[in-house]
Amino acid sequence: MLDVIDLSPDQCEQLLRAGVAGRVALSSPDGPHIVPVNFSVVGDAIIIRTSPYSVLGTYGRDTVLAFEVDQFDHDRWRGWSVVARGRADVVTDPMDLDRIRATWEPRPWAAGSRNLYLRLRWTSLSGRQVGADWDPLATLPVRRAV
Amino acid sequence: MLDVIDLSPDQCEQLLRAGVAGRVALSSPDGPHIVPVNFSVVGDAIIIRTSPYSVLGTYGRDTVLAFEVDQFDHDRWRGWSVVARGRADVVTDPMDLDRIRATWEPRPWAAGSRNLYLRLRWTSLSGRQVGADWDPLATLPVRRAV
Repeated sequence: MLDVIDLSPDQCEQLLRAGVAGRVALSSPDGPHIVPVNFSVVGDAIIIRTSPYSVLGTYGRDTVLAFEVDQFDHDRWRGWSVVARGRADVVTDPMDLDRIRATWEPRPWAAGSRNLYLRLRWTSLSGRQVGADWDPLATLPVRRAV
Repeated sequence: MLDVIDLSPDQCEQLLRAGVAGRVALSSPDGPHIVPVNFSVVGDAIIIRTSPYSVLGTYGRDTVLAFEVDQFDHDRWRGWSVVARGRADVVTDPMDLDRIRATWEPRPWAAGSRNLYLRLRWTSLSGRQVGADWDPLATLPVRRAV
């Protein structure tokens, strides 16, 4: 068994802000869904772009969402994960949209009409690292796409 | 924009069976949760070990779960993801437990009392790859821990 260490709130936030891809979980009438997404953190919210007709666009607005980022190194048996939860709403204010686009516009790899901006303001943030004696922030393999 | 290609059911299943770490989404009274987990596929079910007192152990039994595995290469802008959904139950039959342990016992990296075996028999399986002209199966970076 490997050591599991809770990450500090500051570590969680740094890892979250450094990410470009994660997974969002939502509840729907036919049960939970999980959707891999590109994202960015703007201010204190996770911004996800989706289509208004997707499962996420349909059931992921004005409700609680859970969001996860992680990185696992299976060769070294170490890794970390961060989970954020909170209510999500649709960004409609033109000034908010301008700010999002100016800071970093989420660019989904997937083509298609993803003109709905979901904003998840997290109210809980927690994370863990597996294996001691290493710093998740120092070995961050994901890079912000520019 | 990059091409997004639906994976075939056979590709989805191969990628799922090759994985060792994924994320499970569940609905709870206070909204959706997402939990990173180790897993194995035994027969036609995803096996996850958890604690009976965890969120997953409490709200993830006898209900629909969503499960996701993925791999993204941010340098090459390509990746794949597979999502499985279906009902999960707790494995209690001693012969089923023996079979699971004989085939491959999920070994959570995290220490603790994870003596509850959840079995997710998927009824839907779908996946996508981002970027054409490469084969997710040929470059599978995750390895089954032995």
